[in-house]
Amino acid sequence: MIIDVSDPADPRLADFVGLRDAQLRRSEDRFIAEGLKIIERAFAAGAPPRSLLLQPRWLDGVLPLLTRFPDVPVYVGTEAMIEEVSGFHVHRGALGSFDRPAEATWEALLGARRLLVCEEIVDHANIGAIMRVAAGLGWDGVLVSPGSADPLYRRAIKSSMGASLELPWRRMGGAADLARLREAGFTVVASTISPRAVDVDAFEAPEKVALLLGTEGAGLSREWLAAAGAHVRIPMTDRVDSLNVATAAAILAHSLRQRG
Amino acid sequence: MIIDVSDPADPRLADFVGLRDAQLRRSEDRFIAEGLKIIERAFAAGAPPRSLLLQPRWLDGVLPLLTRFPDVPVYVGTEAMIEEVSGFHVHRGALGSFDRPAEATWEALLGARRLLVCEEIVDHANIGAIMRVAAGLGWDGVLVSPGSADPLYRRAIKSSMGASLELPWRRMGGAADLARLREAGFTVVASTISPRAVDVDAFEAPEKVALLLGTEGAGLSREWLAAAGAHVRIPMTDRVDSLNVATAAAILAHSLRQRG
Repeated sequence: MIIDVSDPADPRLADFVGLRDAQLRRSEDRFIAEGLKIIERAFAAGAPPRSLLLQPRWLDGVLPLLTRFPDVPVYVGTEAMIEEVSGFHVHRGALGSFDRPAEATWEALLGARRLLVCEEIVDHANIGAIMRVAAGLGWDGVLVSPGSADPLYRRAIKSSMGASLELPWRRMGGAADLARLREAGFTVVASTISPRAVDVDAFEAPEKVALLLGTEGAGLSREWLAAAGAHVRIPMTDRVDSLNVATAAAILAHSLRQRG
Repeated sequence: MIIDVSDPADPRLADFVGLRDAQLRRSEDRFIAEGLKIIERAFAAGAPPRSLLLQPRWLDGVLPLLTRFPDVPVYVGTEAMIEEVSGFHVHRGALGSFDRPAEATWEALLGARRLLVCEEIVDHANIGAIMRVAAGLGWDGVLVSPGSADPLYRRAIKSSMGASLELPWRRMGGAADLARLREAGFTVVASTISPRAVDVDAFEAPEKVALLLGTEGAGLSREWLAAAGAHVRIPMTDRVDSLNVATAAAILAHSLRQRG
């Protein structure tokens, strides 16, 4: 259902207003896919579409996706109007609003064998990159601490290349949830740059691994470090202070992957 | 030498005009450090300062760096004026212009044991991230193809966390330079997602490794793939199309690192 729109204040565009407010977006029952490729991924992941907002040139790309959803409105407007509604320059000119899927259950996550667990990773690009790494390297899911960025915020989905829409993930209640992981048989492994930690390649990965990731600057909190049964590190030079957290996650997730 | 400036057209600010034009910047005899932390890294790397442009609140941070350079002008202006001069919103409010250092010599690079070699990596954030990975994981230097982004462009330096200023690197003349690497005793190793390639962990790294990195989408060109003596891959799921190039570089550089 194609609808031309020209008034940025049109109430039908409410899903697309003020998209730069990540905090507000997190509490909503929907998520925004930006760009045709991510919109395609959202459809492929089975997310129910609410509406789309795009420039005319993207119509050919999205119409095939909507054959099963003839009632979903596709609002078509100019680049300038879309920018005024959303509050940012929509580089790829296409936005989709979808029902936000339920987070993975604890039961499903505790039955897994490889989980990444993020403590206060507040940067959306980093959370997205970590989702991409987890999905690409065969990890089963991701847990994020209460203060971490939302994996379903527009920019996080983009940086995940859509992996945020596919990979099971859940927001934790707090550090106490680390005990749940241990009780479910996970070896909780902290990543750190401390020289006292074990070189990750010398660490024999047990059957179930929950790998804790902290911020680039401060690393994991004392509480999280103390909750871990093992501390591992990546052998590094002193030429840099740290690696990017998603880069470090990739090296560790590769090294600790399930084999055979 | 602190100088208040208020006119964005002040000719003394020429070094800071139009900083978003990466192509133009590449041909210049200087580079721009953005933010106090990167400015500090530039001084630490011994780059000769030309001038600084910043908001008053950064003066306390930069003055200690300038004790050895009393004649270097420090232009002080408002946020709005700096944005007008530079053409972008300078988030951290401080810019430094430095003489561009000479690239590493072929002699120095060919004497190394671990080099990353980038083919057409055009994204500045990715080039910077690759420099950071190389420095952090103990690789000796980086080569970039003619079309690759400039590791000394402002945003690349930022994304490298300053590693672009420390790590030896050089721009290649073209693919023919890969023969130089072989002649100097390097095993030229291509990274690829082809299932026919060897799992990187099953590949015994020889004494001298030059690891070729291509773009995320297309990967390495046929010419570069053909120039390589070995093809390696990261074991991946089909849940994502690819990993970010710097992320992939990190896993491979860690796996193929010099040991002992």
